[in-house]
Amino acid sequence: MIMIRENFVQENMEKFSSQSKNCSSFFQLISNKGIRQGQFNIRGKVAKTPLFMPVATRGTVRGVSPSQLKEIGFEMILANTYHLHERPGEEVISKLGGLHRFMNWDGLILTDSGGYQVFSLSNYRKVTDEGVVFRSVLDGKEIFLTPEKVLEIQKKLNSDIAIFLDECPEYPCSAKREEESLIRTLKFAQSSIKVEKNPGQLFFGVVQGGMNFKLRQECVHALLSLGVDGLAIGGLSVGEEPSLTKEVLLATLEVIPPDKPRYLMGVGSDILEYIKMGVDMFDSVFPTRIARHGSAILYNKGRINISNKRFKEDESPLDEDCDCYTCRNFSRAYLRHLFVCGELLGKTLLSIHNLTVLYKTVRALNS
Amino acid sequence: MIMIRENFVQENMEKFSSQSKNCSSFFQLISNKGIRQGQFNIRGKVAKTPLFMPVATRGTVRGVSPSQLKEIGFEMILANTYHLHERPGEEVISKLGGLHRFMNWDGLILTDSGGYQVFSLSNYRKVTDEGVVFRSVLDGKEIFLTPEKVLEIQKKLNSDIAIFLDECPEYPCSAKREEESLIRTLKFAQSSIKVEKNPGQLFFGVVQGGMNFKLRQECVHALLSLGVDGLAIGGLSVGEEPSLTKEVLLATLEVIPPDKPRYLMGVGSDILEYIKMGVDMFDSVFPTRIARHGSAILYNKGRINISNKRFKEDESPLDEDCDCYTCRNFSRAYLRHLFVCGELLGKTLLSIHNLTVLYKTVRALNS
Ligand SMILES: [Zn+2]
Ligand SMILES: [Zn+2]
Repeated sequence: MIMIRENFVQENMEKFSSQSKNCSSFFQLISNKGIRQGQFNIRGKVAKTPLFMPVATRGTVRGVSPSQLKEIGFEMILANTYHLHERPGEEVISKLGGLHRFMNWDGLILTDSGGYQVFSLSNYRKVTDEGVVFRSVLDGKEIFLTPEKVLEIQKKLNSDIAIFLDECPEYPCSAKREEESLIRTLKFAQSSIKVEKNPGQLFFGVVQGGMNFKLRQECVHALLSLGVDGLAIGGLSVGEEPSLTKEVLLATLEVIPPDKPRYLMGVGSDILEYIKMGVDMFDSVFPTRIARHGSAILYNKGRINISNKRFKEDESPLDEDCDCYTCRNFSRAYLRHLFVCGELLGKTLLSIHNLTVLYKTVRALNS
Repeated sequence: MIMIRENFVQENMEKFSSQSKNCSSFFQLISNKGIRQGQFNIRGKVAKTPLFMPVATRGTVRGVSPSQLKEIGFEMILANTYHLHERPGEEVISKLGGLHRFMNWDGLILTDSGGYQVFSLSNYRKVTDEGVVFRSVLDGKEIFLTPEKVLEIQKKLNSDIAIFLDECPEYPCSAKREEESLIRTLKFAQSSIKVEKNPGQLFFGVVQGGMNFKLRQECVHALLSLGVDGLAIGGLSVGEEPSLTKEVLLATLEVIPPDKPRYLMGVGSDILEYIKMGVDMFDSVFPTRIARHGSAILYNKGRINISNKRFKEDESPLDEDCDCYTCRNFSRAYLRHLFVCGELLGKTLLSIHNLTVLYKTVRALNS
């Protein structure tokens, strides 16, 4: 780790502290007392934080139309670089005017790096300091992703926030592996930062370092010294105890300057606790995935599966504390009927409800 | 057929002609020159004719929400009595305030008799003058449907227009079979007309008689003499040549008084021709069924399958002559992408478009 400390943190300490003062044109911290409240202003579009991003895996939040997302209130969504690279390909989307226009979403879009899919979906891969070679899940074709390539794809999609390629270590793993993957993540970041951004686009670096507080903190310093616009915190909620997640997260957040946005990647549970600790951004497929299986999230009352027989004649809304399109217009009995019959509308209506609960729960903290 | 002529037509000729004058409180014929234009006014709700009804088989037009149907402009939809009887059951729907409230549709609803499903889905059935015994497609349970039972179910659903049970002969069939099934249909109608309607509800009788002009016309007279509110024309488009369909239809329409609404059951093609011949109402699963398989109906330009590779980079809307939600907001390339990836949103968006084309094509004739 001496290499990293020398190269990034100490050498760039001055640069880092000056940058942390003037990087706030696109992100304004409104309140830091109690719960952090902030606001993105990117390319003329606003998004208040803390925020939850629905996941538009393939350029669509499954079963939900962009106008329905808008009606709920979402200002930023996440799309998966890897899936869009495979189908329809970034060239197609670029020709058609970028991802916003392609999917008709006029809010903000954050794209991930595709790194997570490489590590979670592919059972064949080889990682070097130059990048990752792996086989496509779709057709077995070999794909070589480099830090530069991953950003070029995101530039073609023209997302508002692009994420650097990283290497996420397995959990549990050795101290050596934690350090190795951190070094690789930072080498990727060094290559990434040289890529020219699209106008108005932001680049977020990824914090790795396993469960080692010190490595995590060094990673933050190093990324900041490179001049990233925000920090995406990866490698958490990968199987470790929730108490450990929180300790590592706290140690990480501790060294991030208040005016830097902090995005906890792919974590969809215990969001309120993480917000209280200082996280600004979340994403998760969880609310829409369980919705498609009939599972509804209630405000502060756990979950119910709407297919359950006890809802057969239940004329109350899914959640009487909710005013989403679904709860304003349909009974539990009708929603159950839709699921029992396998009707598409059921998936859509439960997705709208679950996303609304996530949206409102988070939004209640910044208004 | 002497029995029928005696019992219904001659005996009731006087009643029939007086009824045909005063039955127009719920249906007003606005123009009979060129294309018939009319207007339903049922329970305070209006629906202009000619009209096309989307099919909400199980209380949902597959993949399309009630507000999306409303946005297209639909004033009346069709729901399937048989399917709703099986799941969730008319008792449940009745307890929850009827079908309108259950599915959150505040427009008009026509329910079919379930007879078509009995004859098309079940491979075991026994028809007597009292009704039909058959096995449930769902669980093999024996179900006994009588003319009265079928109306009791529709009364519990509390649809705005209920249809009598009928027997549809196979095609082709003997002259004897045509006559037999007509006699049975009229016996069913005799039992049906004795059932007390829900307030404001209408009862439509079903015209059968195979491809025999004379039987068809006798059936119309007999039904009118019973005092039905409108005529549903069944047993057409069952495999016969289109030219024969038209001849039989013309012969049938010829003897229907101008102020009686005429509904051609389950026919989704050649609608414009049938409207010119004097049909007021249509229903078909065709536009939504083909939409779910990626097939889009274009205004006057046939059909395209959006999954086709040639649409990969096509930035034009599905149909440049269309202003539906889908065509206003999405490119062919995006819709193709959704279908290639098997995304739910694709089915919804194509259904909205196809229904819009049907709606607008028919509506253009009554404005
Ligand atoms: Zn809700
Ligand atoms: Zn359209």
